Amino acid sequence: MKRTHTCNELRLSDAGKDVMLIGWVESLRDHGGVQFLDLRDREGITQIVFHPEKKELFEQVQKLRSESVIQVSGKVCKREEGTANANLPTGEIEINAESMIIHNICEVLPFPLDENADKVNEDLRLQYRFLDLRRPRNLNLLRMRHKASKAIRDYLDSQNFTEVETPALFKSTPEGAREFLVPSRLNPGCFYALSQSPQQYKQMLMVAGIERYYQMARCFRDEDLRADRQPEFTQVDIELSFVDREDMYSLIENMLKKVWKDVLGIDIPTPFPRMGYYEAMNRYGVDKPDTRFELEIQDFTETFKSSQFKVFASVANSEGGAIKAFNAKGLADLTQGELKNLEDIAKTLGAKGLAFIKAENGAWKSPILKFLSESEQSELKSKLNIEDGDIVFFAASKWEQACAIMGRIRLEAAKLLQKRGKLEIPTDKFNFLWVIEFPLMLWDEEQGRYVSAHHPFTSPVPEDVPFLLTDPLKVRGQHYDIVLNGIELGGGSIRIHQPEVQEMVFKDVLKIPADIVESRFGYMLNAFKFGAPPHGGIALGFDRLVAILTNRPSIRDIVAFPKTQKGQDLMAQSPSAVTEKQLKDLFIATNLPE
Amino acid sequence: MKRTHTCNELRLSDAGKDVMLIGWVESLRDHGGVQFLDLRDREGITQIVFHPEKKELFEQVQKLRSESVIQVSGKVCKREEGTANANLPTGEIEINAESMIIHNICEVLPFPLDENADKVNEDLRLQYRFLDLRRPRNLNLLRMRHKASKAIRDYLDSQNFTEVETPALFKSTPEGAREFLVPSRLNPGCFYALSQSPQQYKQMLMVAGIERYYQMARCFRDEDLRADRQPEFTQVDIELSFVDREDMYSLIENMLKKVWKDVLGIDIPTPFPRMGYYEAMNRYGVDKPDTRFELEIQDFTETFKSSQFKVFASVANSEGGAIKAFNAKGLADLTQGELKNLEDIAKTLGAKGLAFIKAENGAWKSPILKFLSESEQSELKSKLNIEDGDIVFFAASKWEQACAIMGRIRLEAAKLLQKRGKLEIPTDKFNFLWVIEFPLMLWDEEQGRYVSAHHPFTSPVPEDVPFLLTDPLKVRGQHYDIVLNGIELGGGSIRIHQPEVQEMVFKDVLKIPADIVESRFGYMLNAFKFGAPPHGGIALGFDRLVAILTNRPSIRDIVAFPKTQKGQDLMAQSPSAVTEKQLKDLFIATNLPE
Repeated sequence: MKRTHTCNELRLSDAGKDVMLIGWVESLRDHGGVQFLDLRDREGITQIVFHPEKKELFEQVQKLRSESVIQVSGKVCKREEGTANANLPTGEIEINAESMIIHNICEVLPFPLDENADKVNEDLRLQYRFLDLRRPRNLNLLRMRHKASKAIRDYLDSQNFTEVETPALFKSTPEGAREFLVPSRLNPGCFYALSQSPQQYKQMLMVAGIERYYQMARCFRDEDLRADRQPEFTQVDIELSFVDREDMYSLIENMLKKVWKDVLGIDIPTPFPRMGYYEAMNRYGVDKPDTRFELEIQDFTETFKSSQFKVFASVANSEGGAIKAFNAKGLADLTQGELKNLEDIAKTLGAKGLAFIKAENGAWKSPILKFLSESEQSELKSKLNIEDGDIVFFAASKWEQACAIMGRIRLEAAKLLQKRGKLEIPTDKFNFLWVIEFPLMLWDEEQGRYVSAHHPFTSPVPEDVPFLLTDPLKVRGQHYDIVLNGIELGGGSIRIHQPEVQEMVFKDVLKIPADIVESRFGYMLNAFKFGAPPHGGIALGFDRLVAILTNRPSIRDIVAFPKTQKGQDLMAQSPSAVTEKQLKDLFIATNLPE
Repeated sequence: MKRTHTCNELRLSDAGKDVMLIGWVESLRDHGGVQFLDLRDREGITQIVFHPEKKELFEQVQKLRSESVIQVSGKVCKREEGTANANLPTGEIEINAESMIIHNICEVLPFPLDENADKVNEDLRLQYRFLDLRRPRNLNLLRMRHKASKAIRDYLDSQNFTEVETPALFKSTPEGAREFLVPSRLNPGCFYALSQSPQQYKQMLMVAGIERYYQMARCFRDEDLRADRQPEFTQVDIELSFVDREDMYSLIENMLKKVWKDVLGIDIPTPFPRMGYYEAMNRYGVDKPDTRFELEIQDFTETFKSSQFKVFASVANSEGGAIKAFNAKGLADLTQGELKNLEDIAKTLGAKGLAFIKAENGAWKSPILKFLSESEQSELKSKLNIEDGDIVFFAASKWEQACAIMGRIRLEAAKLLQKRGKLEIPTDKFNFLWVIEFPLMLWDEEQGRYVSAHHPFTSPVPEDVPFLLTDPLKVRGQHYDIVLNGIELGGGSIRIHQPEVQEMVFKDVLKIPADIVESRFGYMLNAFKFGAPPHGGIALGFDRLVAILTNRPSIRDIVAFPKTQKGQDLMAQSPSAVTEKQLKDLFIATNLPE
């Protein structure tokens, strides 16, 4: 006889039916000489009752340990008056056990699979990932991940996209993140690199005329791991022909709308707000602002140009210098230790220190107060709305650095305010934001040349093209980032599709040597000469998206088999040593002496 | 102004509309001083007309080469009487061009993108894959591949499956096919192997309680390439808890039914026929029989036991020896060269030669005829239905080898008969077949031990378990292969879920040393002790499936960016040399002296 129902299916109306359930022993307890067993499958829980009259069965069940796998048949009965469990969908019934098959007895668990499991050492949980995953919350995270992926596919399918699989075994492109290298046995001395992104393949697909491409693409990066980074990750990869930025915005907005609707039942408002790069930096000190809270940054460069405070005045008068400040409203009570910590953070970003003004007990306190004129103080007070209990932080530096320091301190201050209950950032608030109008190029001091702000395939804003050779920093790129609650979900751009423009960017703007251009991008430049359509695309980090969607702090929670900080897969025991024969083959492949 | 319609959308009822189309120049011809341009996008073709009155436009269009990308606006007009094209959905209208934007001029094509392109050297086509793909047939293959994948997902989603992504960076398991090795930078001396199959992960997911898992999994094998093998391929990977073989059969049958329906509109009959392994070998000489044609093999071991023909008699009387034959109906006219070729093939399979009897002009001709008694001849004649024009082939060898020789010659004979128009194998005939009841173990002469016929996780048929230690060859596995038109689409099994049975198979039957069992399968054996449910699954080769579905002879046709025989990606120019810095890192990772 086969399973007739899941453990979340039977109701009072099923009373009297003969059923067969199968699943894991959630718990077992004796109550008045009767054994009550909660049987769990991935759908839910049903209570099974074993009476002492069935002696053999009763003895068998007493030996069961939690998490053993059993199959039980019996009759559905209404629970006794007053014993129904309103928290369980099956709480009004129980199964009167008539027979049982024990499929697998569980050993003593390495840790209990309850709420406290979260506090268990992560390495132990990763080693027993098959147990940790079994916790209903964790299984549900995987199911939500699947729902999110299905929502994305369903939406893109409905918009006539074609999913195309592109190779993971790509060529090495050492300009990007560090790659995993794979020696090629058939081509001694040569290596594949595991693809970091299907960027070049998807642009080729546009040249091939596919018009609308997507892929849930597995990508690889051999970088040190962090809470939001695994060596392999999944990217929602999209590319379209004959589109402009507006088309891209509404496509992605509608796609994400469907994801949030299908998975959480939430209607997110569209269109998403948009913010220029310079505005984001000036107001939030970062190109991925978390707009769920304010604490906005203000500019005081003009204010301090003629200041007696030399430190600020000299920066304000230097080329590209800026004075930035923001009011960490209500944080005047921060401790010396907290202040020191903020200062250290500012220093890691290149600040010499962290100037501040505290407003406490009706007075301002600050080591720099004595240098500030009355008019400067009054301007600070009115623009920053300084009230008693506030603390204002300053950064004086090159514009970008000053913004970045304030941006980081703003986030840290927000954490301190949250800890004090003075700032609430609701986890169910989803602030989507397009960050746009990035500069196309950045000046790399070290290399003494321009580098692409994103990648060299981004098309300049048409009206800025004339400055490409004369003033590259002035040129805006047709790039867009999609940001959610301060996290960059992804980014993309309208691409260059004219071979002569692409070649000019490589050679004349980025000053990449001709032979490197040829070896890395030669086939792409060539392809563009054979009828390349105008095109653009985007890539979204699917793991990050799911982590935010499911309100998990780490992407390790939403990956079935995550790797540890050292890139180890505790369950699969990889990476591992290999055999001598394999090493020999590897030597041959790398063309090395043994 | 934006594209208003695709090139397959406008009809007579749209006449008078102002439209904007965008796409590739399919062709351009002068007809009576007017330029007719066929504009193509991925949906179809629309005719654009340029009149000499619009002088500038007319001059511009004359300069266009095929495959250039243009955007045209104009008015939809009914074509002149008698010039409609019934073969085109848009054949009753044309666009009277008013303006044009040229997005990209195409250089002279390396080969014309017409029907003859198939005859172009494959390396050249792979190098210009972006052009070869642009041919509507090839773009359509990618869209059919997507449709097939969508049908599979839709079906499995409807059956409550959860797609779970498992790592590609796995550990080395040198027992299987050759793996790609990936040095781990963070763990010097250790290597990942690119996963050949998520087998172990998916079994862990069952232990984790996911119950119904699937994945369109990218898998990797560093083997030499063939028409049906690429170094990376996609596997429809499925695993379920609490199922038996019958559940698996109907699941896969219904899934494939939906694929054929959604992609080809064809209803394939279910359930699929089933055939035991021994029957398949005896009748077709192979465990993946092509049942679209007959030419079945017959057994004559008994017949020749007391024969005067010593060669056959000694084999027939030896242990495990067998005499097999089949009638290649109508192939008596094969040439000496063809016969020689068949003989060579038989020899590569271990035959000493290829005995045959031709029936021509009312007489039998054969070098062995003189050794055959009248009763032997008459038995051959009646069992094989030998008629004038037929040729019968023989194999005398160990049973499995004799079957395999006849099986291969049967396929070759079928090809020769097809060439002669004497056998038709319709390409739109889809003969699905389950091959079942495989032996669990094979005896490996070389290693002097039993080896798994499929893999060591396959559960034995329950009633055969008693023979596991005493007579392993007698034990049937709960394995099933799904075969289509002579090609193995995939296979799977009900797995072992009891740790003690799995351990016995590893150690006592397969005689794998305890330390290897521990290092390769230790975590799995351990996991099975913590509540492993009964489970089973299957894996289907998605590339093969799509190739048959779309009637393409090579899977290179249905992979967007296939690699060449040497594993090279001509378009991405990989594998490639790497930088010194990268090599150095690799050396560090492999723990080698520089």
